Amino acid sequence: MKRVVATGTFDILHTGHLYYLEESRRLGDELYVIVARDVNVKHKPRPVVPEEQRLKMVAALKPVDHAVLGDLTDMFRPIREIQPSVITIGFNQHFNEEKLRTELSARNISCDVVRIGKYSGDTYCSTSLIIQQVLERYREE
Amino acid sequence: MKRVVATGTFDILHTGHLYYLEESRRLGDELYVIVARDVNVKHKPRPVVPEEQRLKMVAALKPVDHAVLGDLTDMFRPIREIQPSVITIGFNQHFNEEKLRTELSARNISCDVVRIGKYSGDTYCSTSLIIQQVLERYREE
Repeated sequence: MKRVVATGTFDILHTGHLYYLEESRRLGDELYVIVARDVNVKHKPRPVVPEEQRLKMVAALKPVDHAVLGDLTDMFRPIREIQPSVITIGFNQHFNEEKLRTELSARNISCDVVRIGKYSGDTYCSTSLIIQQVLERYREE
Repeated sequence: MKRVVATGTFDILHTGHLYYLEESRRLGDELYVIVARDVNVKHKPRPVVPEEQRLKMVAALKPVDHAVLGDLTDMFRPIREIQPSVITIGFNQHFNEEKLRTELSARNISCDVVRIGKYSGDTYCSTSLIIQQVLERYREE
């Protein structure tokens, strides 16, 4: 059984998320998703939707077999438990692939790291575009 | 095979939508969802996410077997085609159940109409609450 791990915040779900998860799922037999904890989202604005709800929504998507919240302090803990063959990174995730490979190997975790390409098939396939659209639509009210 | 039809706009997906769809799915063997066309959303603000993307996201949810866009002019056309045993209405949908029953029966469509209760298990289980939260979070920027 080839396990794939995808990770992310998944704040306001959109077709870009779906593409990332579907492409990740294709790389193995079972897709685990690690959903970022609220307090650990530091490189972009704090999520609008709380972690428990983001987790529920990700778990409800067809390509997802298992969804779990990330660890509060050790991002490698769930990865050690899941023992994936592949970890996927979204096109705009801030990880450096090489650095991640080094960190995994330093912890004796043997898995591939694959970056999934950008999806640009739809107009609002990013959380920030949706937020921008909400602001434009409701700003004057 | 007992078919259930659920309907809605499903603008920014949240756990309230998921609850409505899961509860609808429980009432039969197969869940069809009719997703409102952009131009037909008149009783509340125009959706942020375009209809094709709303359709894709609804179709990607586990309780949903089939998702289709509504008809531009005749809301009963997809219902005639699907031939459901049950039509469900969300707690905040503006249909009047009795009026809907009368309209269905006037068209020789024989099915139950069931209103699904309100889900209040999560903080942001409505599109308008999420939009409000986006506005509060980003207004000053």
